[in-house]
Amino acid sequence: MISQEFKEMLKAQSVIRKLSVYATERGKEIGYENVFDYSLGNPSVPVPPEFTQAMIELLQTKEPSYLHGYSPSPGNPIARQTTADSLNRRFDMNYTVDHIFMTSGAAGAVAHAVRAVTKPGDEVLTFAPYFPEYNPYINKSGANLKVVPANIENFQINFEAFEEMLNDKVMAVLINTPNNPSGIAYSSETLTRLADILREKEKAFGHEIFLISDEPYREIVFAGVDAPYVSKFYDNTLSCYSYSKSLSIPGERIGYVAVNPNCVDAQSIVPMCCQISRGTGHNCPASIIQLAVAKCIDLTSDLSVYETNMNLLYHELTALGFECVKPGGTFYIFPKALEEDANAFSEKAKKYDLMLVPSDTFGVKGYFRMAYCIETEKVERSLEALRKFVKEQY
Amino acid sequence: MISQEFKEMLKAQSVIRKLSVYATERGKEIGYENVFDYSLGNPSVPVPPEFTQAMIELLQTKEPSYLHGYSPSPGNPIARQTTADSLNRRFDMNYTVDHIFMTSGAAGAVAHAVRAVTKPGDEVLTFAPYFPEYNPYINKSGANLKVVPANIENFQINFEAFEEMLNDKVMAVLINTPNNPSGIAYSSETLTRLADILREKEKAFGHEIFLISDEPYREIVFAGVDAPYVSKFYDNTLSCYSYSKSLSIPGERIGYVAVNPNCVDAQSIVPMCCQISRGTGHNCPASIIQLAVAKCIDLTSDLSVYETNMNLLYHELTALGFECVKPGGTFYIFPKALEEDANAFSEKAKKYDLMLVPSDTFGVKGYFRMAYCIETEKVERSLEALRKFVKEQY
Repeated sequence: MISQEFKEMLKAQSVIRKLSVYATERGKEIGYENVFDYSLGNPSVPVPPEFTQAMIELLQTKEPSYLHGYSPSPGNPIARQTTADSLNRRFDMNYTVDHIFMTSGAAGAVAHAVRAVTKPGDEVLTFAPYFPEYNPYINKSGANLKVVPANIENFQINFEAFEEMLNDKVMAVLINTPNNPSGIAYSSETLTRLADILREKEKAFGHEIFLISDEPYREIVFAGVDAPYVSKFYDNTLSCYSYSKSLSIPGERIGYVAVNPNCVDAQSIVPMCCQISRGTGHNCPASIIQLAVAKCIDLTSDLSVYETNMNLLYHELTALGFECVKPGGTFYIFPKALEEDANAFSEKAKKYDLMLVPSDTFGVKGYFRMAYCIETEKVERSLEALRKFVKEQY
Repeated sequence: MISQEFKEMLKAQSVIRKLSVYATERGKEIGYENVFDYSLGNPSVPVPPEFTQAMIELLQTKEPSYLHGYSPSPGNPIARQTTADSLNRRFDMNYTVDHIFMTSGAAGAVAHAVRAVTKPGDEVLTFAPYFPEYNPYINKSGANLKVVPANIENFQINFEAFEEMLNDKVMAVLINTPNNPSGIAYSSETLTRLADILREKEKAFGHEIFLISDEPYREIVFAGVDAPYVSKFYDNTLSCYSYSKSLSIPGERIGYVAVNPNCVDAQSIVPMCCQISRGTGHNCPASIIQLAVAKCIDLTSDLSVYETNMNLLYHELTALGFECVKPGGTFYIFPKALEEDANAFSEKAKKYDLMLVPSDTFGVKGYFRMAYCIETEKVERSLEALRKFVKEQY
């Protein structure tokens, strides 16, 4: 019989998706180039040419059965080894191939990580503002996501609220730095304090509390920002990564879980992820994509456009009187709306063909998110619309 | 805290996997060419050259953002439309793009299908002999897999046992034709009778019973065999397909769920699958693979080698006195062992470097599976080993 649970879910349409659909429709009327679509976090910069070259070379020179054959469950050993080597070189870690589990993007990585370190009924804490897809990611595993209120001063962690909510049913804490939607990277200070609290509570509760670190924006960090590698601070860390943003290949669905070698049961977690896959229907990223990524492991797309766009927007927004914490990375900015109701604010902005996502679903009221992964030229043109919007409406 | 459920699963190693590992180890001693490895169902024939050509052409001519950008949740519309058109053309169906949900292979397809049409606690029936991975596929969704005993006469359906087990908690029936491990395709007669019973019981129980048809071997059917398209027989059918076997690209993880347009809630099931994905971390097959498959939609690898291999083995096995139902497709054959204990039989065969998978995990005792997706030359050489094995041991 048809699942009522999933049928019911169809009624709720994501605010982001709704705005994006509106933007597309509006684009048909006035030309999409005239819609200032800040709704979706869809990377806009080209892939590095080396990635395309690597793909073509693989296709022209390798045996099809090598290219397209089954990967072992944890992923292609070359992709896993190359990933471990790169993380070790860049972040002074000591991963081996046994600590890397290849996944279909960060969504797949978080899906595995949460199942590896919780059981149904356990609590997982995350911090507002947060990516709303964490709700299905966590809750559909059987664990329960609880959201710690935001530190609205700087979008680092609200430690007071965190310590209040940290009870002995909490088996994992999920963080996302640099953060969607705030654009903020957690500082060394924040991560040190977070790790200290977790270690203390592990002792107090007599069980591990794992840190699931969702890092798809790790490579998009702006000049001078302190955005350290999370796993350095806390042994019981599972780092979840996606190549979507760094290589601009979100459709190719490739990422990984990297298990800190000093974590409890470090040698079991990757084999456990293989078991988890059997139940979710996940079976590795595409084999040729694993091989191509391994050949481009330390490359990124030219990500500088995001910083250019951020500076343009941050400058204009603050000049217009918006309260706004300056992003440290990603391609998001998260200013305070000019009225209490962010939905009303966002509605009004649509009249100026500005697509601004109201913040309620991110776990904070009264803010809005702009995803500035669009052409700089369009960002520049949007500034006039922003000025007009603010002048006429507020 | 680490999941005890998944940690416990590490202790049980699959018989197939164990045999395959042994074969690899043995290959290091005597040369893998001398190991008659019938353990794994890993397609051995080359991909069609058109697939490689399509991939290269896409990479050389298309915008990277088009090639590698996010797919919409149900999959790339071109891949979905092309799939619908092909199924309509070949099987006289009337699918539209709305009935096709792209998945990462058949595992992903079954994972979505079962969640769409059951809730935790529901029963799903399947028929022995069956693919043992159906246990995690179904049970980890929260539904319970129950196995109907085999019809050992011809490996069609044991309808008597089926009707006995068909109670009102059964919300779905999972079939696999052509079948792994038996190689048998369900005949029109079998499917007609199955559909009649399901329709009757739907009325009696007052709820739908969905048919989940797992069809990764659909294109591997031997001459003269009646292997009709399942969905033609029963409206409430979700067809689960993988291009792994037909195009020899198992590592690329691409398949689909095709929802019968006359099925209950036919328009909701694909959107529901998109909701299901959010909870399992599944997000579409790789985008470039979707586009490449769309360009090769009606092609297959040269699959004739499997029939050649089957005929060689079937001839030899029957000549040696094995009871064996002649396979109608796939690359499996499933003869009766020469002693009651298939595990003991398989152990003895290892002395002749014959890797034969004992049948217990397939839900039937006393048989063995040979996966003959290996070179014909090797099949030929293995016949002498088979003869020697039987002569010396039985």
